Amino acid sequence: MEEGGHGIPRSHPRYWSLVLRERLVEAMREGIVVPQGLIAHGRGECFDYLIGEETQWFAREAARAAAALLLLAEHPVISVNGNAAALAADELVRLSKLLDAPLEVNLFYRTEERVRRIAELLRRKGARRVLGVEDATARIPGLPHPRGMVSPEGILRADVVLVALEDGDRAEALRRMGKRVIAIDLNPLSRTARMADVTIVDNIVRAVPLIAGEIEKLRGRPRSELGEIVQGYDNNRVLAGALLHIRERLEKLAREGVALNPLGEG
Amino acid sequence: MEEGGHGIPRSHPRYWSLVLRERLVEAMREGIVVPQGLIAHGRGECFDYLIGEETQWFAREAARAAAALLLLAEHPVISVNGNAAALAADELVRLSKLLDAPLEVNLFYRTEERVRRIAELLRRKGARRVLGVEDATARIPGLPHPRGMVSPEGILRADVVLVALEDGDRAEALRRMGKRVIAIDLNPLSRTARMADVTIVDNIVRAVPLIAGEIEKLRGRPRSELGEIVQGYDNNRVLAGALLHIRERLEKLAREGVALNPLGEG
Repeated sequence: MEEGGHGIPRSHPRYWSLVLRERLVEAMREGIVVPQGLIAHGRGECFDYLIGEETQWFAREAARAAAALLLLAEHPVISVNGNAAALAADELVRLSKLLDAPLEVNLFYRTEERVRRIAELLRRKGARRVLGVEDATARIPGLPHPRGMVSPEGILRADVVLVALEDGDRAEALRRMGKRVIAIDLNPLSRTARMADVTIVDNIVRAVPLIAGEIEKLRGRPRSELGEIVQGYDNNRVLAGALLHIRERLEKLAREGVALNPLGEG
Repeated sequence: MEEGGHGIPRSHPRYWSLVLRERLVEAMREGIVVPQGLIAHGRGECFDYLIGEETQWFAREAARAAAALLLLAEHPVISVNGNAAALAADELVRLSKLLDAPLEVNLFYRTEERVRRIAELLRRKGARRVLGVEDATARIPGLPHPRGMVSPEGILRADVVLVALEDGDRAEALRRMGKRVIAIDLNPLSRTARMADVTIVDNIVRAVPLIAGEIEKLRGRPRSELGEIVQGYDNNRVLAGALLHIRERLEKLAREGVALNPLGEG
């Protein structure tokens, strides 16, 4: 039996879900993720299960608009928290290089120790510019200290911010500052999902490479064409599509699973 | 502003969800819950949110059948794992006294240290009989060691077992041993939910008092009447009802939330 990391057989129907779970638990032991991050991951797992653990059309459409927005941006910044770093450090570093955009560490439960560990992880993965460490001297208005600490060279001056697995307060505060927000969030009903200009309803490990792929496709296109992609994008349609998809999948699962009692008894 | 434990204001719309989250995090620090338990709790939170964080008709109906089954049982046992103990130790102890049924500690990630801590917590809450500690000398066929360890005086000889937040393998193994299984599980699609004879799709902190209330109502009724309640109960109907409820709620949430961009912009 072929095995991936952590001794989980690759043939397991939910292989990736189990690998990511173990990755998170390990990251908590390393001080990168907080316990509350594990609970948040569980909520994400639930929604990933409900969308089918595969990228759907609504995520593809959002990723294309996100790529156009990032290519048009003057100062794009990729915000990274503990869960994002634990799950997708490689992918986030690659995206940051592709865009020549800095990564900025931003934590809900901020401690300097944890910021340092996450920055170290990103640098070990090859990150060129990691902000939000000693340089987190500015504040996002409306967020309590130290949650609102940001870098004057990063999020403070950014015009487009990519946030992953982020809380609604931060997404809202960034919008209020006039920034365009791209969110990666598996819950299409979350405040973050609804606050963002572009919401990619997909697992971060699939969503970040998806955005990178779209950037490679769109790079070099005239700005007017990129602008049209952004103009033509409707986030409410995408979120409604995600909800409709979940509803249909629940029906399918109900037909397949619940009618059938696995032991064949009453 | 009135505050509950943990400094969370009682007026917060998701007060209980936040309190339970903090309770779990604390229980992990105390060695009662494992990190994987926090992820599992997150999945539960997601389903609780989807059912509306309130007891619904399908949970009431299941709780009534569960109460009848427990009152008819010769050797009912209440199985307790880390998350169940962390979330609802008081309620589980009260139920066990009401039924004069033992509590048995059963862990997916079993260590003797954690079993001991959970048993201590239950005894501190007033539990009279806690099994599954030094007496876990028997095995449930089909479960790997040490996950399958049970007490000969408890689950091994039980005719009805109440399991909460349990994995599908254990529920299936108990069914194969010919036991009647009552499950408390927020995910109506889980294997545990589908394997059980009676599935209460509700948060454990609401479900256990609900069962206790039904026991108080039904106690003293003739066995024939209790038998009729059990006979008339259809778990597939209840699970299908839970799924339908979630589907309708998704539609409602979609209508209320997603159409409305909270900043009133594109």
